[in-house]
Amino acid sequence: MEEVKSGLENVVVLETGVSSIDGTEGVLRYRGFDINDLVYLPYDAVSYLLIRGKLPDDNELAVYSATLNEKRELGEYVQNVVRACNFNIEAMDALRTTISYMSHCDPDLNDNSEEANLRKATNLIAKFPTIVAAFSRILKGETPVSPDPTLSHGANFLYMLRGSKPTEIEAEAMEKDFILSAEHELNASSFASRITASTCSDLYSAIITGICTLKGPLHGGARMEVMNMLDEIPAPEAAEAYVLEKIANKEKIMGFGHRVYMTQDPRTIIFKVLAKQLAESKGETQWYRTAENIENTLFAEFMGKRGKPLYPNVDFYSGVVYKYLEIPPRLATAVFAAGRISGWIAHCMEQYSDNRVIRPRAKYVKPAKTLKA
Amino acid sequence: MEEVKSGLENVVVLETGVSSIDGTEGVLRYRGFDINDLVYLPYDAVSYLLIRGKLPDDNELAVYSATLNEKRELGEYVQNVVRACNFNIEAMDALRTTISYMSHCDPDLNDNSEEANLRKATNLIAKFPTIVAAFSRILKGETPVSPDPTLSHGANFLYMLRGSKPTEIEAEAMEKDFILSAEHELNASSFASRITASTCSDLYSAIITGICTLKGPLHGGARMEVMNMLDEIPAPEAAEAYVLEKIANKEKIMGFGHRVYMTQDPRTIIFKVLAKQLAESKGETQWYRTAENIENTLFAEFMGKRGKPLYPNVDFYSGVVYKYLEIPPRLATAVFAAGRISGWIAHCMEQYSDNRVIRPRAKYVKPAKTLKA
Repeated sequence: MEEVKSGLENVVVLETGVSSIDGTEGVLRYRGFDINDLVYLPYDAVSYLLIRGKLPDDNELAVYSATLNEKRELGEYVQNVVRACNFNIEAMDALRTTISYMSHCDPDLNDNSEEANLRKATNLIAKFPTIVAAFSRILKGETPVSPDPTLSHGANFLYMLRGSKPTEIEAEAMEKDFILSAEHELNASSFASRITASTCSDLYSAIITGICTLKGPLHGGARMEVMNMLDEIPAPEAAEAYVLEKIANKEKIMGFGHRVYMTQDPRTIIFKVLAKQLAESKGETQWYRTAENIENTLFAEFMGKRGKPLYPNVDFYSGVVYKYLEIPPRLATAVFAAGRISGWIAHCMEQYSDNRVIRPRAKYVKPAKTLKA
Repeated sequence: MEEVKSGLENVVVLETGVSSIDGTEGVLRYRGFDINDLVYLPYDAVSYLLIRGKLPDDNELAVYSATLNEKRELGEYVQNVVRACNFNIEAMDALRTTISYMSHCDPDLNDNSEEANLRKATNLIAKFPTIVAAFSRILKGETPVSPDPTLSHGANFLYMLRGSKPTEIEAEAMEKDFILSAEHELNASSFASRITASTCSDLYSAIITGICTLKGPLHGGARMEVMNMLDEIPAPEAAEAYVLEKIANKEKIMGFGHRVYMTQDPRTIIFKVLAKQLAESKGETQWYRTAENIENTLFAEFMGKRGKPLYPNVDFYSGVVYKYLEIPPRLATAVFAAGRISGWIAHCMEQYSDNRVIRPRAKYVKPAKTLKA
């Protein structure tokens, strides 16, 4: 058997038409389209693109958005499940349990046909933000807020979370966050969810695998850690000392570096602009300035002392954006999941459509033994 | 980027000390020990071996079994969750939801230290069979049965399922089933659960990924399909015609062939003996004879017409064993999971102990596109 590559770094394990990353040039494309263009579309259009493989025309988009609107509301049953999750957990845990429960009620649970999966897909995409918002409100002793059919996917989430409509720039930032979080080639959660789909398990199970995997702090959980870090630093001026101390103690600073990008992550560039716009519109620039100081300190340290730059990754400035959107840290990973769900579904449907079980081998590195007689 | 190997067939993706398969010789070893030897130990000893990496001495085994006994019973809270699962679902769906809920109550949920994970491990291993048995009884309108501390892990499961103690040979078959189902190198579910663990997500999440992935009919779900097939064939004499018709219609016959074994699966050989012993002890040999006729027909067809044999895999004779143990088909995959949990935990703990995120690449195979202006 051949050499083992740690963490499957740079190992190509399958072919896809869902997305592509050029890590050298810093280009991310969903279904062939550059995210710098897609970010000006509604999330619904990007979600449709990912799942169906083509951009919707005006009519298709209207129908798709109407379906999401219909399915956004939680039934009493699902709301009771969220209510029962009212513990000291993250929204990710509640999301996982609720989706698992929801699947029990789907009469097409084990039907893996494209038609049935598209139906499940809209249901999941519509309900993810509602579940996260309901969890947050119930946790605070507030009543869940019903979705408003006049609002976009992103605006609806903020509305259901807060009980009041977001400003235009907040709504735009939320839409763009969902778009930029929607897909990223074979990240750990998308790969794991494809493995679940490859055994011909059901779509809910495959998505739950995605949730389980995104939760980790070395994956989607990093966004929450970035938010916690911003809370730890009392003022922008304290950022440099904070970073240098972390480096001296060989502690990890969350939200920096990415295995695939040799240059700036194109998502980060957009998130940074959004963070700045939000900061300025709210007249509260301290989190943005703190973040910028962290970025600059790390860049100088790595460029100056090690001769290579260290760039913030997608979790860094998205974490800053979440601070300005007043999203509590324990919701952060689940909000990420509410964007990523479209990418997971796209990957799983691609896997179902041309399937082979993903079953690799391991190299055994210990001796054989015999039982004492 | 290099060539893509469909389904990662024969691609070595990591190093392990958990188990090894020699597919040419038909040898399966857990932690270096041949399963033909391990099958004579109690499940508790094999479970300890997998999780701790060494066989327990008498005292260690007694302590481990006592801990499992303590944790086997479901609290009222968990039992209520199982009760709420009372739908037209498989036990696997209920198991996934219940474990997800259970995690909310663990104060060490996100503590990935070895100590915390060993505590979670015993809790999960102890409760899996209890949850499956409770689900089955609740579904039939019966009251769940509390575990009996004088019984083995396998005997306890049958006792909680039926409400009466199993015979000696039934208890032995159940123990051996749990042992033979406990671990199988980088099968799809173990690989997927390691990916979840590799993001430093929590152990419950990693195990839920395992459940989600084992459920598929191209993985653990095959055992249920084998049981359903046995129900479809009215008598042993009808097996040949049934098989030939399936072949003529190019339909898959569940429980045959395995990617890794070029010869007989060593687990299948043991399961076949167990199935025969159960059949004879109960004086009901029809399922065993039906199975043998299916095996012989397929072997002759493949050997005769294609020059290469087709062997039954682990799901085939284990499905026959489950018939004799009166395990309902919709429980089959979850019973498999109740054995496999020890292997999943062993893999996850190995992953946590020397971790790198499992994040491969995909090859994009569609053209780049531009949005119309």
